[in-house]
Amino acid sequence: MLYIIGLGLCDEKDITMRGLEAVKSSSRVYLEAYTSILMVQKERLEAFYGKDLILADRDMVETESDEILRDADTQDVSLLVVGDPFGATTHTDMILRARALKIPTRIIHNASIMNAIGACGLALYNFGQSVSLVFFTETWKPDSFYDRIKENADLGLHTLVLLDIKVKEQSEENLARGRKIYEPPRYMTIPQAVSQLIEIEALRQSGTLSAEKTLAVGMSRVGGGDEHQRIVCGTLAELQAHPVDAFGEPLHSLVIVGKRLHPLEVEFAEDFAVNRGTWQGVAESVYGCASSQQ
Amino acid sequence: MLYIIGLGLCDEKDITMRGLEAVKSSSRVYLEAYTSILMVQKERLEAFYGKDLILADRDMVETESDEILRDADTQDVSLLVVGDPFGATTHTDMILRARALKIPTRIIHNASIMNAIGACGLALYNFGQSVSLVFFTETWKPDSFYDRIKENADLGLHTLVLLDIKVKEQSEENLARGRKIYEPPRYMTIPQAVSQLIEIEALRQSGTLSAEKTLAVGMSRVGGGDEHQRIVCGTLAELQAHPVDAFGEPLHSLVIVGKRLHPLEVEFAEDFAVNRGTWQGVAESVYGCASSQQ
Repeated sequence: MLYIIGLGLCDEKDITMRGLEAVKSSSRVYLEAYTSILMVQKERLEAFYGKDLILADRDMVETESDEILRDADTQDVSLLVVGDPFGATTHTDMILRARALKIPTRIIHNASIMNAIGACGLALYNFGQSVSLVFFTETWKPDSFYDRIKENADLGLHTLVLLDIKVKEQSEENLARGRKIYEPPRYMTIPQAVSQLIEIEALRQSGTLSAEKTLAVGMSRVGGGDEHQRIVCGTLAELQAHPVDAFGEPLHSLVIVGKRLHPLEVEFAEDFAVNRGTWQGVAESVYGCASSQQ
Repeated sequence: MLYIIGLGLCDEKDITMRGLEAVKSSSRVYLEAYTSILMVQKERLEAFYGKDLILADRDMVETESDEILRDADTQDVSLLVVGDPFGATTHTDMILRARALKIPTRIIHNASIMNAIGACGLALYNFGQSVSLVFFTETWKPDSFYDRIKENADLGLHTLVLLDIKVKEQSEENLARGRKIYEPPRYMTIPQAVSQLIEIEALRQSGTLSAEKTLAVGMSRVGGGDEHQRIVCGTLAELQAHPVDAFGEPLHSLVIVGKRLHPLEVEFAEDFAVNRGTWQGVAESVYGCASSQQ
Protein backbone atom coordinates (compact mmCIF):
# COMPACT_ATOMS: atom_id res chain seq x y z
CA MET A 1 0.00 0.00 0.00
CA LEU A 2 1.20 3.50 -0.80
CA TYR A 3 0.04 5.92 1.88
CA ILE A 4 0.07 9.61 1.04
CA ILE A 5 -0.23 11.29 4.40
CA GLY A 6 -1.01 14.91 5.13
CA LEU A 7 1.02 16.26 8.05
CA GLY A 8 -1.09 19.34 8.66
CA LEU A 9 0.43 22.75 9.03
CA CYS A 10 2.68 23.12 12.05
CA ASP A 11 4.69 20.41 13.66
CA GLU A 12 5.06 16.73 14.43
CA LYS A 13 1.90 16.59 16.56
CA ASP A 14 -0.40 17.58 13.72
CA ILE A 15 -0.30 14.13 12.16
CA THR A 16 -3.48 12.13 12.69
CA MET A 17 -3.60 8.88 14.63
CA ARG A 18 -4.37 7.09 11.37
CA GLY A 19 -1.38 8.75 9.75
CA LEU A 20 0.92 7.81 12.59
CA GLU A 21 -0.19 4.17 12.38
CA ALA A 22 0.59 4.14 8.68
CA VAL A 23 4.05 5.64 9.27
CA LYS A 24 4.82 3.03 11.88
CA SER A 25 3.72 0.17 9.60
CA SER A 26 5.80 1.40 6.65
CA SER A 27 9.11 -0.06 5.56
CA ARG A 28 10.11 3.22 3.91
CA VAL A 29 8.86 6.72 4.75
CA TYR A 30 9.50 9.65 2.38
CA LEU A 31 9.15 13.28 3.41
CA GLU A 32 8.27 15.57 0.56
CA ALA A 33 10.42 18.61 1.05
CA TYR A 34 9.43 21.15 -1.51
CA THR A 35 5.74 21.97 -1.76
CA SER A 36 5.56 23.69 1.56
CA ILE A 37 7.44 24.00 4.78
CA LEU A 38 6.64 22.62 8.18
CA MET A 39 7.72 24.60 11.22
CA VAL A 40 9.98 21.80 12.42
CA GLN A 41 13.02 19.95 11.20
CA LYS A 42 13.20 16.43 9.82
CA GLU A 43 15.08 15.20 12.89
CA ARG A 44 12.25 16.19 15.21
CA LEU A 45 9.75 14.33 13.05
CA GLU A 46 12.02 11.27 13.04
CA ALA A 47 12.32 11.27 16.82
CA PHE A 48 8.56 11.60 17.23
CA TYR A 49 7.65 8.94 14.68
CA GLY A 50 10.47 6.61 15.66
CA LYS A 51 11.37 6.23 11.98
CA ASP A 52 14.09 7.43 9.64
CA LEU A 53 12.73 9.67 6.92
CA ILE A 54 14.00 9.83 3.35
CA LEU A 55 13.92 13.38 2.00
CA ALA A 56 12.18 13.50 -1.35
CA ASP A 57 12.77 16.72 -3.22
CA ARG A 58 10.92 17.90 -6.31
CA ASP A 59 13.19 15.95 -8.66
CA MET A 60 12.63 12.74 -6.79
CA VAL A 61 8.84 12.99 -6.49
CA GLU A 62 8.49 13.94 -10.15
CA THR A 63 11.11 11.75 -11.81
CA GLU A 64 11.71 8.85 -9.45
CA SER A 65 8.17 7.93 -8.54
CA ASP A 66 8.95 4.31 -9.39
CA GLU A 67 11.65 4.27 -6.71
CA ILE A 68 9.15 5.60 -4.17
CA LEU A 69 6.64 2.98 -5.32
CA ARG A 70 9.15 0.11 -5.25
CA ASP A 71 7.72 -2.96 -3.46
CA ALA A 72 4.64 -1.00 -2.40
CA ASP A 73 2.53 -3.86 -3.76
CA THR A 74 3.83 -6.10 -0.97
CA GLN A 75 4.94 -3.60 1.72
CA ASP A 76 3.62 -0.36 3.13
CA VAL A 77 5.37 2.77 1.91
CA SER A 78 4.46 6.27 3.11
CA LEU A 79 4.92 9.65 1.47
CA LEU A 80 4.51 12.50 3.95
CA VAL A 81 3.38 15.87 2.63
CA VAL A 82 2.86 19.13 4.45
CA GLY A 83 -0.81 20.15 4.66
CA ASP A 84 -3.16 17.84 2.76
CA PRO A 85 -2.19 15.55 -0.16
CA PHE A 86 -4.74 17.40 -2.31
CA GLY A 87 -4.02 20.90 -1.07
CA ALA A 88 -2.15 23.49 -3.08
CA THR A 89 -0.07 20.78 -4.77
CA THR A 90 -1.96 17.68 -5.77
CA HIS A 91 -0.40 14.26 -6.03
CA THR A 92 -2.49 12.97 -8.88
CA ASP A 93 0.58 12.02 -10.93
CA MET A 94 1.87 9.75 -8.20
CA ILE A 95 -1.56 8.16 -7.70
CA LEU A 96 -2.01 7.57 -11.42
CA ARG A 97 1.41 5.95 -11.58
CA ALA A 98 0.54 3.69 -8.63
CA ARG A 99 -2.74 2.79 -10.27
CA ALA A 100 -0.91 1.84 -13.49
CA LEU A 101 1.35 -0.44 -11.43
CA LYS A 102 -1.70 -1.90 -9.62
CA ILE A 103 -0.43 -0.63 -6.29
CA PRO A 104 -3.23 0.26 -3.87
CA THR A 105 -3.13 3.80 -2.45
CA ARG A 106 -4.68 5.40 0.59
CA ILE A 107 -4.91 9.13 1.16
CA ILE A 108 -4.81 10.32 4.77
CA HIS A 109 -6.22 13.82 4.84
CA ASN A 110 -5.30 16.70 7.09
CA ALA A 111 -5.73 20.44 7.34
CA SER A 112 -4.25 22.54 4.57
CA ILE A 113 -4.01 26.28 4.12
CA MET A 114 -6.98 25.93 1.75
CA ASN A 115 -9.33 25.30 4.68
CA ALA A 116 -7.38 26.43 7.77
CA ILE A 117 -7.36 29.99 6.39
CA GLY A 118 -10.89 30.10 7.83
CA ALA A 119 -9.17 30.83 11.16
CA CYS A 120 -9.05 34.50 10.11
CA GLY A 121 -12.80 34.55 10.66
CA LEU A 122 -13.84 34.96 7.02
CA ALA A 123 -16.36 32.28 5.99
CA LEU A 124 -14.89 29.72 3.58
CA TYR A 125 -18.22 29.77 1.73
CA ASN A 126 -17.43 33.23 0.46
CA PHE A 127 -13.99 32.49 -0.94
CA GLY A 128 -13.61 32.31 -4.69
CA GLN A 129 -10.72 30.65 -6.51
CA SER A 130 -7.30 30.77 -4.86
CA VAL A 131 -4.29 32.37 -6.52
CA SER A 132 -0.53 32.05 -6.23
CA LEU A 133 1.80 35.01 -6.23
CA VAL A 134 5.41 34.45 -7.30
CA PHE A 135 8.44 36.63 -6.58
CA PHE A 136 8.73 39.29 -9.26
CA THR A 137 12.11 39.88 -10.85
CA GLU A 138 13.23 42.91 -12.87
CA THR A 139 12.21 41.18 -16.07
CA TRP A 140 9.51 38.72 -15.04
CA LYS A 141 6.32 39.88 -13.42
CA PRO A 142 3.64 37.33 -14.19
CA ASP A 143 0.29 38.92 -13.39
CA SER A 144 -2.42 36.44 -14.33
CA PHE A 145 -3.34 36.29 -10.63
CA TYR A 146 -4.76 39.79 -11.03
CA ASP A 147 -7.49 38.63 -13.40
CA ARG A 148 -8.53 35.97 -10.94
CA ILE A 149 -8.64 38.35 -8.00
CA LYS A 150 -10.77 40.64 -10.17
CA GLU A 151 -13.13 37.78 -11.05
CA ASN A 152 -13.58 37.05 -7.36
CA ALA A 153 -13.88 40.70 -6.38
CA ASP A 154 -16.51 41.35 -9.05
CA LEU A 155 -18.62 38.65 -7.35
CA GLY A 156 -17.88 40.03 -3.88
CA LEU A 157 -15.79 36.98 -2.95
CA HIS A 158 -12.67 36.76 -0.81
CA THR A 159 -9.40 35.58 -2.39
CA LEU A 160 -6.75 33.45 -0.71
CA VAL A 161 -3.35 34.49 -2.06
CA LEU A 162 -0.64 31.86 -1.58
CA LEU A 163 2.78 33.47 -1.34
CA ASP A 164 5.87 32.17 -3.09
CA ILE A 165 8.51 30.02 -1.43
CA LYS A 166 11.94 29.51 -2.97
CA VAL A 167 13.90 26.56 -1.69
CA LYS A 168 16.85 24.83 -3.32
CA GLU A 169 17.36 27.75 -5.69
CA GLN A 170 20.67 27.92 -7.54
CA SER A 171 22.30 31.17 -8.52
CA GLU A 172 22.67 31.63 -12.29
CA GLU A 173 26.40 31.10 -11.96
CA ASN A 174 26.10 27.89 -9.96
CA LEU A 175 23.42 26.64 -12.33
CA ALA A 176 25.62 27.39 -15.37
CA ARG A 177 28.59 25.63 -13.82
CA GLY A 178 26.50 22.68 -12.71
CA ARG A 179 27.39 23.26 -9.05
CA LYS A 180 24.78 21.94 -6.67
CA ILE A 181 25.12 24.88 -4.31
CA TYR A 182 21.83 26.31 -3.15
CA GLU A 183 20.80 29.78 -2.04
CA PRO A 184 19.19 30.22 1.39
CA PRO A 185 15.40 29.68 1.29
CA ARG A 186 13.24 32.74 0.65
CA TYR A 187 9.67 33.26 1.72
CA MET A 188 7.50 36.05 0.41
CA THR A 189 6.23 38.30 3.20
CA ILE A 190 2.85 39.97 3.40
CA PRO A 191 4.26 43.50 2.77
CA GLN A 192 6.15 42.20 -0.30
CA ALA A 193 3.00 40.54 -1.58
CA VAL A 194 0.95 43.70 -1.08
CA SER A 195 3.60 45.75 -2.91
CA GLN A 196 3.37 43.41 -5.90
CA LEU A 197 -0.42 43.59 -5.90
CA ILE A 198 -0.34 47.38 -5.87
CA GLU A 199 2.30 47.42 -8.61
CA ILE A 200 0.04 45.40 -10.90
CA GLU A 201 -3.04 47.44 -10.01
CA ALA A 202 -1.10 50.55 -11.08
CA LEU A 203 -0.49 48.92 -14.47
CA ARG A 204 -3.97 47.53 -14.98
CA GLN A 205 -6.02 50.24 -13.27
CA SER A 206 -9.28 48.31 -13.14
CA GLY A 207 -9.95 49.58 -9.65
CA THR A 208 -10.02 46.02 -8.28
CA LEU A 209 -7.44 46.82 -5.62
CA SER A 210 -7.03 50.09 -3.79
CA ALA A 211 -4.30 50.86 -1.27
CA GLU A 212 -6.72 52.80 0.93
CA LYS A 213 -10.04 51.10 0.21
CA THR A 214 -9.28 47.40 -0.10
CA LEU A 215 -9.19 45.41 3.13
CA ALA A 216 -6.98 42.38 3.54
CA VAL A 217 -6.02 39.91 6.24
CA GLY A 218 -2.48 38.64 6.63
CA MET A 219 -1.83 35.39 8.46
CA SER A 220 1.36 33.62 9.39
CA ARG A 221 1.94 30.10 10.69
CA VAL A 222 -1.74 29.27 10.47
CA GLY A 223 -2.74 26.69 13.04
CA GLY A 224 0.35 27.32 15.15
CA GLY A 225 -1.52 28.51 18.21
CA ASP A 226 -1.00 31.83 19.93
CA GLU A 227 2.74 31.29 20.32
CA HIS A 228 3.25 31.12 16.53
CA GLN A 229 0.18 32.21 14.61
CA ARG A 230 -0.39 35.88 13.78
CA ILE A 231 -3.37 37.57 12.22
CA VAL A 232 -2.98 41.17 11.05
CA CYS A 233 -5.67 42.98 9.11
CA GLY A 234 -6.14 46.39 7.59
CA THR A 235 -6.11 48.25 4.30
CA LEU A 236 -3.50 47.24 1.74
CA ALA A 237 -1.60 50.45 2.52
CA GLU A 238 -1.55 49.61 6.23
CA LEU A 239 -0.31 46.07 5.64
CA GLN A 240 2.36 47.30 3.22
CA ALA A 241 3.68 49.82 5.75
CA HIS A 242 3.45 47.52 8.79
CA PRO A 243 6.79 46.28 10.20
CA VAL A 244 7.52 42.90 8.65
CA ASP A 245 8.50 41.42 12.03
CA ALA A 246 5.02 42.07 13.35
CA PHE A 247 3.65 39.50 10.92
CA GLY A 248 5.60 36.70 12.55
CA GLU A 249 7.75 33.99 11.04
CA PRO A 250 7.07 32.47 7.58
CA LEU A 251 4.92 31.10 6.02
CA HIS A 252 2.72 34.09 5.31
CA SER A 253 -0.65 34.01 3.60
CA LEU A 254 -2.90 36.83 2.50
CA VAL A 255 -6.63 37.17 2.00
CA ILE A 256 -8.13 39.96 -0.10
CA VAL A 257 -11.50 40.75 1.46
CA GLY A 258 -14.49 40.70 -0.90
CA LYS A 259 -17.60 42.84 -0.66
CA ARG A 260 -19.75 40.00 0.71
CA LEU A 261 -18.37 40.86 4.09
CA HIS A 262 -20.50 40.07 7.13
CA PRO A 263 -20.65 42.13 10.36
CA LEU A 264 -19.51 39.10 12.36
CA GLU A 265 -16.43 38.81 10.13
CA VAL A 266 -15.61 42.48 10.70
CA GLU A 267 -16.00 42.00 14.43
CA PHE A 268 -13.97 38.80 14.57
CA ALA A 269 -10.96 40.40 12.89
CA GLU A 270 -11.04 43.83 14.51
CA ASP A 271 -8.89 42.72 17.45
CA PHE A 272 -6.17 42.03 14.89
CA ALA A 273 -6.43 45.31 13.01
CA VAL A 274 -3.39 47.52 12.44
CA ASN A 275 -5.82 50.29 13.28
CA ARG A 276 -9.25 49.38 14.58
CA GLY A 277 -10.76 52.67 13.47
CA THR A 278 -9.59 52.30 9.87
CA TRP A 279 -10.71 48.66 9.75
CA GLN A 280 -14.21 49.48 10.97
CA GLY A 281 -14.39 52.69 8.94
CA VAL A 282 -13.48 51.11 5.59
CA ALA A 283 -15.69 48.10 6.33
CA GLU A 284 -18.59 50.46 6.82
CA SER A 285 -17.97 53.16 4.20
CA VAL A 286 -16.53 51.04 1.37
CA TYR A 287 -17.93 47.57 2.09
CA GLY A 288 -21.24 48.76 3.52
CA CYS A 289 -20.71 46.48 6.48
CA ALA A 290 -20.67 47.77 10.05
CA SER A 291 -19.11 45.67 12.78
CA SER A 292 -21.78 44.10 14.96
CA GLN A 293 -19.88 45.57 17.92
CA GLN A 294 -20.21 49.18 16.97
CA MET B 1 -8.20 27.11 27.75
CA LEU B 2 -11.04 26.33 25.37
CA TYR B 3 -9.89 23.93 22.67
CA ILE B 4 -11.99 23.67 19.54
CA ILE B 5 -10.79 20.50 17.91
CA GLY B 6 -11.47 19.29 14.40
CA LEU B 7 -12.05 15.53 14.26
CA GLY B 8 -11.56 15.15 10.52
CA LEU B 9 -14.01 13.28 8.38
CA CYS B 10 -14.24 9.60 9.20
CA ASP B 11 -13.67 8.01 12.55
CA GLU B 12 -11.87 8.15 15.87
CA LYS B 13 -8.42 7.77 14.33
CA ASP B 14 -8.65 10.98 12.32
CA ILE B 15 -7.99 13.17 15.35
CA THR B 16 -4.49 14.66 15.39
CA MET B 17 -1.95 13.88 18.10
CA ARG B 18 -2.27 17.48 19.26
CA GLY B 19 -6.04 17.10 19.43
CA LEU B 20 -5.83 13.88 21.39
CA GLU B 21 -3.49 15.50 23.92
CA ALA B 22 -5.96 18.33 24.42
CA VAL B 23 -8.85 15.90 24.90
CA LYS B 24 -6.89 13.99 27.50
CA SER B 25 -6.00 17.17 29.39
CA SER B 26 -9.60 18.45 29.47
CA SER B 27 -11.93 18.27 32.43
CA ARG B 28 -14.98 18.39 30.17
CA VAL B 29 -15.21 17.31 26.52
CA TYR B 30 -18.18 18.29 24.37
CA LEU B 31 -19.02 16.63 21.06
CA GLU B 32 -20.89 18.87 18.69
CA ALA B 33 -23.56 16.67 17.21
CA TYR B 34 -25.29 18.64 14.53
CA THR B 35 -23.12 20.29 11.93
CA SER B 36 -22.03 17.11 10.30
CA ILE B 37 -21.91 13.42 10.97
CA LEU B 38 -18.95 11.23 11.71
CA MET B 39 -19.04 7.65 10.55
CA VAL B 40 -18.79 6.34 14.10
CA GLN B 41 -20.80 6.51 17.28
CA LYS B 42 -20.07 8.52 20.41
CA GLU B 43 -19.30 5.37 22.38
CA ARG B 44 -16.48 4.40 20.05
CA LEU B 45 -14.95 7.85 20.38
CA GLU B 46 -15.24 7.63 24.17
CA ALA B 47 -13.51 4.25 24.27
CA PHE B 48 -10.69 5.51 22.04
CA TYR B 49 -10.16 8.79 23.89
CA GLY B 50 -10.67 7.26 27.34
CA LYS B 51 -13.06 10.13 28.16
CA ASP B 52 -16.79 10.60 28.57
CA LEU B 53 -18.21 12.97 25.98
CA ILE B 54 -21.07 15.41 26.53
CA LEU B 55 -23.29 15.66 23.46
CA ALA B 56 -23.82 19.29 22.48
CA ASP B 57 -26.66 19.78 20.04
CA ARG B 58 -27.45 22.93 18.11
CA ASP B 59 -29.43 24.43 20.98
CA MET B 60 -26.64 23.94 23.42
CA VAL B 61 -23.82 25.31 21.24
CA GLU B 62 -25.89 28.35 20.30
CA THR B 63 -27.66 29.16 23.53
CA GLU B 64 -25.60 27.63 26.31
CA SER B 65 -22.12 28.69 25.28
CA ASP B 66 -21.52 30.01 28.78
CA GLU B 67 -22.07 26.52 30.18
CA ILE B 68 -19.53 25.12 27.72
CA LEU B 69 -17.12 27.91 28.68
CA ARG B 70 -17.65 27.47 32.44
CA ASP B 71 -14.31 27.36 34.31
CA ALA B 72 -12.37 27.33 31.01
CA ASP B 73 -10.27 30.18 32.40
CA THR B 74 -8.76 27.80 34.95
CA GLN B 75 -9.29 24.36 33.38
CA ASP B 76 -9.04 22.89 29.89
CA VAL B 77 -12.35 22.33 28.13
CA SER B 78 -12.63 20.80 24.65
CA LEU B 79 -15.32 21.12 22.01
CA LEU B 80 -15.02 18.45 19.32
CA VAL B 81 -16.38 19.22 15.89
CA VAL B 82 -16.53 17.05 12.80
CA GLY B 83 -14.20 18.23 10.03
CA ASP B 84 -12.44 21.52 10.80
CA PRO B 85 -13.62 24.18 13.29
CA PHE B 86 -13.71 26.67 10.41
CA GLY B 87 -15.19 24.37 7.78
CA ALA B 88 -18.74 24.59 6.56
CA THR B 89 -19.93 25.80 9.97
CA THR B 90 -17.68 28.31 11.66
CA HIS B 91 -17.40 28.72 15.38
CA THR B 92 -16.78 32.44 15.43
CA ASP B 93 -19.66 33.07 17.86
CA MET B 94 -18.16 30.75 20.44
CA ILE B 95 -14.70 32.27 20.02
CA LEU B 96 -16.03 35.82 20.33
CA ARG B 97 -17.88 34.82 23.51
CA ALA B 98 -14.71 33.27 24.94
CA ARG B 99 -12.76 36.40 24.02
CA ALA B 100 -15.33 38.56 25.83
CA LEU B 101 -14.91 36.39 28.92
CA LYS B 102 -11.09 36.58 28.59
CA ILE B 103 -10.86 32.83 28.12
CA PRO B 104 -7.96 31.79 25.87
CA THR B 105 -8.87 29.61 22.89
CA ARG B 106 -6.88 27.28 20.69
CA ILE B 107 -8.09 25.93 17.36
CA ILE B 108 -6.83 22.50 16.36
CA HIS B 109 -7.34 22.15 12.63
CA ASN B 110 -8.13 19.08 10.63
CA ALA B 111 -9.35 18.08 7.20
CA SER B 112 -12.82 19.25 6.19
CA ILE B 113 -14.89 18.54 3.13
CA MET B 114 -13.80 22.00 1.90
CA ASN B 115 -10.29 20.70 1.19
CA ALA B 116 -10.62 16.88 1.20
CA ILE B 117 -12.94 17.13 -1.82
CA GLY B 118 -9.67 17.44 -3.75
CA ALA B 119 -9.53 13.64 -3.52
CA CYS B 120 -11.81 13.53 -6.58
CA GLY B 121 -8.80 14.72 -8.57
CA LEU B 122 -10.11 18.19 -9.45
CA ALA B 123 -7.61 20.89 -8.42
CA LEU B 124 -8.78 22.97 -5.45
CA TYR B 125 -7.33 26.03 -7.21
CA ASN B 126 -10.12 25.87 -9.74
CA PHE B 127 -13.02 25.71 -7.30
CA GLY B 128 -15.16 28.81 -6.92
CA GLN B 129 -17.45 29.50 -3.99
CA SER B 130 -19.15 26.53 -2.33
CA VAL B 131 -22.92 26.19 -2.12
CA SER B 132 -25.37 24.34 0.10
CA LEU B 133 -28.40 22.53 -1.24
CA VAL B 134 -31.34 21.98 1.12
CA PHE B 135 -34.14 19.43 0.80
CA PHE B 136 -36.94 20.90 -1.29
CA THR B 137 -40.50 20.59 -0.05
CA GLU B 138 -43.71 21.03 -2.03
CA THR B 139 -43.85 24.69 -1.05
CA TRP B 140 -40.25 25.66 -0.34
CA LYS B 141 -37.59 25.38 -3.00
CA PRO B 142 -34.90 27.91 -2.20
CA ASP B 143 -32.75 28.30 -5.29
CA SER B 144 -30.16 30.97 -4.58
CA PHE B 145 -27.50 28.25 -4.95
CA TYR B 146 -28.24 28.32 -8.67
CA ASP B 147 -26.95 31.88 -9.06
CA ARG B 148 -23.73 30.93 -7.36
CA ILE B 149 -23.20 27.83 -9.48
CA LYS B 150 -23.79 30.05 -12.52
CA GLU B 151 -21.25 32.61 -11.28
CA ASN B 152 -18.68 29.83 -10.92
CA ALA B 153 -19.60 28.18 -14.22
CA ASP B 154 -19.35 31.48 -16.11
CA LEU B 155 -15.72 31.67 -14.90
CA GLY B 156 -15.08 28.02 -15.74
CA LEU B 157 -14.75 27.07 -12.06
CA HIS B 158 -15.82 23.90 -10.29
CA THR B 159 -18.50 24.10 -7.56
CA LEU B 160 -18.60 22.03 -4.40
CA VAL B 161 -22.24 21.39 -3.51
CA LEU B 162 -22.79 20.46 0.14
CA LEU B 163 -25.89 18.31 0.54
CA ASP B 164 -28.47 18.76 3.25
CA ILE B 165 -28.59 16.73 6.45
CA LYS B 166 -31.66 16.62 8.67
CA VAL B 167 -31.11 15.42 12.20
CA LYS B 168 -33.36 15.95 15.22
CA GLU B 169 -36.25 16.98 13.00
CA GLN B 170 -39.70 17.03 14.55
CA SER B 171 -42.86 16.29 12.59
CA GLU B 172 -45.27 19.23 12.41
CA GLU B 173 -47.61 17.42 14.77
CA ASN B 174 -44.94 16.69 17.37
CA LEU B 175 -43.66 20.24 17.07
CA ALA B 176 -47.16 21.67 17.58
CA ARG B 177 -47.75 19.47 20.60
CA GLY B 178 -44.33 20.21 22.04
CA ARG B 179 -43.34 16.56 22.00
CA LYS B 180 -39.61 16.03 21.79
CA ILE B 181 -39.93 13.09 19.42
CA TYR B 182 -37.54 13.19 16.51
CA GLU B 183 -37.76 11.79 13.01
CA PRO B 184 -34.99 9.47 11.77
CA PRO B 185 -32.06 11.41 10.27
CA ARG B 186 -32.17 12.12 6.54
CA TYR B 187 -29.23 12.68 4.24
CA MET B 188 -29.58 14.04 0.74
CA THR B 189 -28.22 11.62 -1.85
CA ILE B 190 -26.40 12.52 -5.04
CA PRO B 191 -29.34 11.51 -7.33
CA GLN B 192 -31.72 13.63 -5.21
CA ALA B 193 -29.34 16.58 -5.41
CA VAL B 194 -29.01 16.24 -9.17
CA SER B 195 -32.81 16.09 -9.53
CA GLN B 196 -33.13 19.35 -7.62
CA LEU B 197 -30.45 21.01 -9.74
CA ILE B 198 -32.19 19.94 -12.95
CA GLU B 199 -35.56 21.10 -11.57
CA ILE B 200 -34.19 24.60 -10.99
CA GLU B 201 -32.41 24.69 -14.36
CA ALA B 202 -35.76 23.91 -15.98
CA LEU B 203 -37.23 26.97 -14.24
CA ARG B 204 -34.33 29.34 -14.84
CA GLN B 205 -33.17 28.07 -18.24
CA SER B 206 -29.86 29.91 -18.28
CA GLY B 207 -28.12 26.88 -19.75
CA THR B 208 -25.77 26.69 -16.76
CA LEU B 209 -26.62 23.05 -16.14
CA SER B 210 -27.45 20.46 -18.74
CA ALA B 211 -28.49 16.89 -18.02
CA GLU B 212 -26.45 15.56 -20.94
CA LYS B 213 -23.64 18.11 -21.19
CA THR B 214 -22.69 19.01 -17.63
CA LEU B 215 -20.19 16.72 -15.93
CA ALA B 216 -20.23 16.17 -12.19
CA VAL B 217 -18.43 14.08 -9.61
CA GLY B 218 -20.24 12.47 -6.70
CA MET B 219 -18.31 11.45 -3.60
CA SER B 220 -19.37 9.71 -0.44
CA ARG B 221 -17.55 9.26 2.85
CA VAL B 222 -14.62 11.32 1.66
CA GLY B 223 -11.40 10.23 3.33
CA GLY B 224 -12.84 6.89 4.38
CA GLY B 225 -10.42 4.77 2.36
CA ASP B 226 -11.40 2.22 -0.23
CA GLU B 227 -13.69 0.34 2.15
CA HIS B 228 -15.94 3.42 2.59
CA GLN B 229 -15.18 6.15 0.09
CA ARG B 230 -16.83 6.14 -3.32
CA ILE B 231 -16.23 8.37 -6.30
CA VAL B 232 -18.74 8.27 -9.16
CA CYS B 233 -18.60 10.65 -12.10
CA GLY B 234 -20.55 11.28 -15.23
CA THR B 235 -23.11 13.60 -16.76
CA LEU B 236 -25.88 14.89 -14.51
CA ALA B 237 -28.30 12.55 -16.29
CA GLU B 238 -26.05 9.56 -15.59
CA LEU B 239 -25.67 10.43 -11.90
CA GLN B 240 -29.42 10.99 -11.55
CA ALA B 241 -30.21 7.57 -13.04
CA HIS B 242 -27.43 5.67 -11.26
CA PRO B 243 -28.59 3.29 -8.47
CA VAL B 244 -28.41 5.17 -5.18
CA ASP B 245 -26.73 2.22 -3.44
CA ALA B 246 -23.78 2.49 -5.82
CA PHE B 247 -22.89 5.85 -4.29
CA GLY B 248 -22.21 4.31 -0.90
CA GLU B 249 -23.35 5.35 2.54
CA PRO B 250 -23.94 9.01 3.52
CA LEU B 251 -22.59 11.67 3.59
CA HIS B 252 -22.69 12.47 -0.09
CA SER B 253 -21.07 15.46 -1.77
CA LEU B 254 -21.26 16.67 -5.32
CA VAL B 255 -18.95 18.69 -7.54
CA ILE B 256 -20.20 20.44 -10.68
CA VAL B 257 -17.29 20.40 -13.10
CA GLY B 258 -16.30 23.76 -14.59
CA LYS B 259 -14.87 24.40 -18.03
CA ARG B 260 -11.33 24.94 -16.74
CA LEU B 261 -10.97 21.19 -16.80
CA HIS B 262 -7.48 19.74 -17.24
CA PRO B 263 -6.64 16.51 -19.12
CA LEU B 264 -5.07 15.08 -15.97
CA GLU B 265 -8.34 15.69 -14.10
CA VAL B 266 -10.28 13.88 -16.83
CA GLU B 267 -7.85 10.98 -16.66
CA PHE B 268 -7.83 10.77 -12.88
CA ALA B 269 -11.61 10.46 -12.66
CA GLU B 270 -12.26 8.22 -15.65
CA ASP B 271 -11.80 5.02 -13.62
CA PHE B 272 -14.81 6.18 -11.58
CA ALA B 273 -17.06 7.07 -14.52
CA VAL B 274 -20.55 5.61 -14.81
CA ASN B 275 -19.61 5.25 -18.46
CA ARG B 276 -16.02 5.90 -19.47
CA GLY B 277 -16.97 6.68 -23.07
CA THR B 278 -19.51 9.33 -22.10
CA TRP B 279 -17.13 10.89 -19.57
CA GLN B 280 -14.32 11.18 -22.09
CA GLY B 281 -16.67 12.17 -24.91
CA VAL B 282 -18.36 15.03 -23.05
CA ALA B 283 -15.02 16.18 -21.62
CA GLU B 284 -13.70 16.44 -25.17
CA SER B 285 -16.72 17.70 -27.11
CA VAL B 286 -18.28 20.04 -24.52
CA TYR B 287 -15.33 20.95 -22.28
CA GLY B 288 -12.71 20.87 -25.04
CA CYS B 289 -10.55 18.71 -22.85
CA ALA B 290 -9.33 15.31 -23.98
CA SER B 291 -8.09 12.82 -21.40
CA SER B 292 -4.32 12.56 -21.47
CA GLN B 293 -4.82 8.79 -21.75
CA GLN B 294 -6.72 8.80 -25.03
